[in-house]
Amino acid sequence: MFIFSNDDINAVLSMRDCIDAFEHTYRDVAAGQAVNGHRSDMITETARADSVYLLKMVGAVVPRYAIGAVRINSDILSFPTHNGKTRKVKIPAAAGNRWVGLVMLFNTQTGAPLALFPDGVIQRMRVGATSGLGVHYLARHDARTAAILGSGWQAGAQAQAIAAVRSLDKLYIYSPDETRRRIFAQQLEQQLSIPVEAAVSAEQAVRQADIVLCATNSLQPVLSHDWLRPGMHVGSIREGELAADELKIFDRIIVHDPGNMADDHLVVARGIEHREKSSPLMRTLDQAPALSALISGQVEARQSAAEITAFLNYHGLGYQFAAAGAVLLEKALAAGRGVELPDEWFTQDVHS
Amino acid sequence: MFIFSNDDINAVLSMRDCIDAFEHTYRDVAAGQAVNGHRSDMITETARADSVYLLKMVGAVVPRYAIGAVRINSDILSFPTHNGKTRKVKIPAAAGNRWVGLVMLFNTQTGAPLALFPDGVIQRMRVGATSGLGVHYLARHDARTAAILGSGWQAGAQAQAIAAVRSLDKLYIYSPDETRRRIFAQQLEQQLSIPVEAAVSAEQAVRQADIVLCATNSLQPVLSHDWLRPGMHVGSIREGELAADELKIFDRIIVHDPGNMADDHLVVARGIEHREKSSPLMRTLDQAPALSALISGQVEARQSAAEITAFLNYHGLGYQFAAAGAVLLEKALAAGRGVELPDEWFTQDVHS
Repeated sequence: MFIFSNDDINAVLSMRDCIDAFEHTYRDVAAGQAVNGHRSDMITETARADSVYLLKMVGAVVPRYAIGAVRINSDILSFPTHNGKTRKVKIPAAAGNRWVGLVMLFNTQTGAPLALFPDGVIQRMRVGATSGLGVHYLARHDARTAAILGSGWQAGAQAQAIAAVRSLDKLYIYSPDETRRRIFAQQLEQQLSIPVEAAVSAEQAVRQADIVLCATNSLQPVLSHDWLRPGMHVGSIREGELAADELKIFDRIIVHDPGNMADDHLVVARGIEHREKSSPLMRTLDQAPALSALISGQVEARQSAAEITAFLNYHGLGYQFAAAGAVLLEKALAAGRGVELPDEWFTQDVHS
Repeated sequence: MFIFSNDDINAVLSMRDCIDAFEHTYRDVAAGQAVNGHRSDMITETARADSVYLLKMVGAVVPRYAIGAVRINSDILSFPTHNGKTRKVKIPAAAGNRWVGLVMLFNTQTGAPLALFPDGVIQRMRVGATSGLGVHYLARHDARTAAILGSGWQAGAQAQAIAAVRSLDKLYIYSPDETRRRIFAQQLEQQLSIPVEAAVSAEQAVRQADIVLCATNSLQPVLSHDWLRPGMHVGSIREGELAADELKIFDRIIVHDPGNMADDHLVVARGIEHREKSSPLMRTLDQAPALSALISGQVEARQSAAEITAFLNYHGLGYQFAAAGAVLLEKALAAGRGVELPDEWFTQDVHS
């Protein structure tokens, strides 16, 4: 049983490997050869009056990799209101101002636990790799320019993902803070070895791009359909980034997994998140085809160079932790990373 | 973050403490002050052709103890057929012929992980403590004799549980193997400091007892309603131990949690377990009041010395791991047990 750190994971897990593993896995999903667990959200009071405690479990088994994965999040959530809008904020309440999210992997041939590690880096990679598959299957093959809206933790992975599936001549970055977007552009230019430019507005970035990926914390739509033109592909990782009543501009919308939305309504039902099931966005999310159907050929990809396509990469799936976990395990063990703990600590000579 | 072993847990976790913690917890459950997660059963192929892999997650949060608990089972299941009956057998396929079941505890005030330990001993204690609460609330207060049918791993905890809630003059043991039941009786006599007798038949044991707890692996009913008499209490921990068409003998039936049955139908739906939702047993299990309703006074307990009562302790709940885990944590830390690992391995400075 190995313990990996986020540093271990950063050192060995590449976006390209994740995208490849996810592509195989979504094919298996479409073929019914992988199983996703129920997501369970357990919400109770916590010590802080303005907060709640959320214990969340997801899981999946991907037989191709002989891996079962469980992801557990143990979060203190607060809901600050700013300018009349309520945001959900995770409080780093563990010692040293830290957050708690863990992934545990198991071997499906022996049942044995294989690894335990924090979910932060892998979470970011999985969101990026999934957006990358959206680009791979929906964007024009000759797309050469891209824009990232956002400059945070997730935005960097989105940039890596585009660069992994398309040969870019130019990448534009926009986020409201000028210093942040400039630094972020410099970092990406070094990291991706392509020209990266900080744009002065979202509109300027979008109007120059074939592919736009939104990776913001915004509660307001971050782009206008007026800026879009035939042949573009747009990705979004957070509800609210795209105006729900402007989704009709898209000729083709693919979502991560429509069935996966249902469980999330639990959170909504408890009044923690305010979202109408009957809203235009929810109707779209419930009815659009899944990424696995796209990848397996059950639904059509882009049908012309003029289509405007969208991939709404909302709500994760347990599969992603099993698939990225399989890559991590192989690469980390090959690189001699991690702390090995005695297997006997995590197995037993009695059974329940 | 502490790692505890089954030995640590055996050394510090008492049946009395578990029963007390469960009693508080079921009151909270009835009051809506604790949350149980969805159970998720993920079943796929495994290497052995005659087996399947099952990754199972349950969880719960009990604010009284500021504890969230997740239990994960990673099992290779086979289904051998013997005399036309199919049994479910967990194969100890991990290195050293070991099984894999783990519980992880989290602090609801900080989110921090607190402990990780195997589930075997605590699973047995929780089944015992729950049966003990059934006895406490349903058996006659002047019950002085008891019978345990079974001599296995669970049977010992059932005996401890009765002894914790009633002053017994005599305990009878029956299981088919004469040597096993004799040795088990001797062990219990030493452990419980009460006279324990190995009976020559289930009927002989039952006819002499005020309280009967069944804790067998039998697929056939282990007692006949002809052996029961007014004033008795019967407990069962496994479906099939009591004849479904004889349940009408009971004046009062309490089940562990009727709502909890639903998820288990998943396993049934996959043809792994063969059980009809419309069977008399399933109808009883779906309609009978829950233990939490009994303990909180929402439904009546025994109403006369003549009633024959039953508690069907089928299907665990995540709450039990949070409640027993809270006791374990307090007692084990006070006793200096466990291996402490760095908290930073299980927390992070990024969030997902």
